[in-house]
Amino acid sequence: MSDAVVFVGTKPIMNYVLATLTQFNEGAESVTVKARGRAISRAVDVAEIVRNRFLPGINIKEIKIDTEELESEQRRVNVSTIEIVLEKAG
Amino acid sequence: MSDAVVFVGTKPIMNYVLATLTQFNEGAESVTVKARGRAISRAVDVAEIVRNRFLPGINIKEIKIDTEELESEQRRVNVSTIEIVLEKAG
Repeated sequence: MSDAVVFVGTKPIMNYVLATLTQFNEGAESVTVKARGRAISRAVDVAEIVRNRFLPGINIKEIKIDTEELESEQRRVNVSTIEIVLEKAG
Repeated sequence: MSDAVVFVGTKPIMNYVLATLTQFNEGAESVTVKARGRAISRAVDVAEIVRNRFLPGINIKEIKIDTEELESEQRRVNVSTIEIVLEKAG
């Protein structure tokens, strides 16, 4: 169970912190926190709160950023994305 | 000159893109794009726009996130930070 993903949107940040903690408590070796657009800042908050306040044994394995092209009715819009991979320390 | 830093705040994103491009054009081997709080999403936009639209020869060397403690008058506030290190491809 190493493919747990938490997608951060517009709900209160602690919802996503709790979702991440739950994945680790249920046995996940790693949890990927994903977001795009303005939610990117919030994804970083989630990762930082998880490892600083709740699970000091969790490390940041990798952080990736990328660009997604969204099709709206009139035009294509580029939106930035982030993936923060958290993992249990060896 | 490998210690160029662009600190992303609330100005238009293209200001920071231009600042980053200028550093590379002036000979920097790497440029670190930094931000904190809600500006983190914008720092990711800056990095993505620089490498996708203007300088395809630039790679992301490293992305770090952290937490800073700010002292306000009444209490301490934790704020997330990001550092995106861009470098010229070898």
